[in-house]
Amino acid sequence: MRVIFNEEMKQVADDLDHMAQDVRKAINGAGEALLKQDVEAAQTVIDGDIEIDALESSIIDQCVHLLAKQTPVATDLRVVVSTLRLASTFERMGDLARHVAEGARRTYPASPLPESAQPVFAEMIDFLSNTADQMVGMLADRDAKTAEHVILDDDKLDALHHQTFELALADDITRQQTVDIVLLGRFLERLGDHAVSAARRVVYIVSGFDPSKKPTRDEGTDID
Amino acid sequence: MRVIFNEEMKQVADDLDHMAQDVRKAINGAGEALLKQDVEAAQTVIDGDIEIDALESSIIDQCVHLLAKQTPVATDLRVVVSTLRLASTFERMGDLARHVAEGARRTYPASPLPESAQPVFAEMIDFLSNTADQMVGMLADRDAKTAEHVILDDDKLDALHHQTFELALADDITRQQTVDIVLLGRFLERLGDHAVSAARRVVYIVSGFDPSKKPTRDEGTDID
Repeated sequence: MRVIFNEEMKQVADDLDHMAQDVRKAINGAGEALLKQDVEAAQTVIDGDIEIDALESSIIDQCVHLLAKQTPVATDLRVVVSTLRLASTFERMGDLARHVAEGARRTYPASPLPESAQPVFAEMIDFLSNTADQMVGMLADRDAKTAEHVILDDDKLDALHHQTFELALADDITRQQTVDIVLLGRFLERLGDHAVSAARRVVYIVSGFDPSKKPTRDEGTDID
Repeated sequence: MRVIFNEEMKQVADDLDHMAQDVRKAINGAGEALLKQDVEAAQTVIDGDIEIDALESSIIDQCVHLLAKQTPVATDLRVVVSTLRLASTFERMGDLARHVAEGARRTYPASPLPESAQPVFAEMIDFLSNTADQMVGMLADRDAKTAEHVILDDDKLDALHHQTFELALADDITRQQTVDIVLLGRFLERLGDHAVSAARRVVYIVSGFDPSKKPTRDEGTDID
């Protein structure tokens, strides 16, 4: 039984790593689409979301199968339950990256963002690209230290997100640009929030302690 | 073993019903806050989100405990796994209702919305209030028919959400009102999406068939 569990669990873990890598690719592709008006990159992210969705379905099926047939306990159970939840988090991150890509594609060959907003968005994308690297790493290595770093670092993205609201209120941009700054900023900020919840699940797998029980309450998404 | 499972499962199911009722209260309170500038209603929603978060934690702990000690299979396992996922969906709905309440409180005693946007937002709130009633009912009665109704009905909310973008582009409102229309519209639309995923989980519990595998791909949240 134990051998089968480990084999099947390895397959799910590989699929989850694969999902994290796909999400990283989607974040980087969405960044290219948004900052360089790369419409092919946008299309690749949009088309690629189907694979991310399919991986989520497959991982959930495998986890339910594992729970039914192998009845894992202790750490093994924690891994299976966390895997279920991580797959949902990654699926949502894929959706958000797709929304960013769709936003970039819609105004092609122009950018949806005014010049004034480009630097802050470039910083947000840069931050998320770095976070995505850490996310892939912490998952592959069950590395709680990197995960804690992702959790603590999110304030920087929230500060950048805050700046986008000031940019959105400028008088010398179009109303559509105001709308796009608000939505695209929100999508990027939510990508960061989801990376934080992924990091919390990794800490939980490694330590058995769930840092999501700290009262963080999604404070970064206040609309003011 | 079976008796204990049923007793413990009943406790989790009660907590989940409780959570759905709290979410319904939060949606209705957020609606009062937004449409009637009821700042007390806003504060109640904001404060009440802590209870929703605590219920999620407790439900997840109970599910993990059930999986470890009772090793459920077949329908029982499906119920436990769906309960885990429903708790996360409801927690997120609580966050979104809180965001709406925070948006209303920020501009008190004025409304964050211009006059022109009030009717569409009133329709969205009305729709969600009705959806919340169905959500509580479908969960308490394991009623797949109501759940399917929630899934099919979501197009109406998406159409209303689409209208908010036109309102947001008007020249005779302030930039801040444009920002608020976009964000508040997004929060309400996401509440609808989460109600749809909750409905899908109920269908899965009842029928074993997961309608989320249909390719819906969160189309309603396109930014154009």
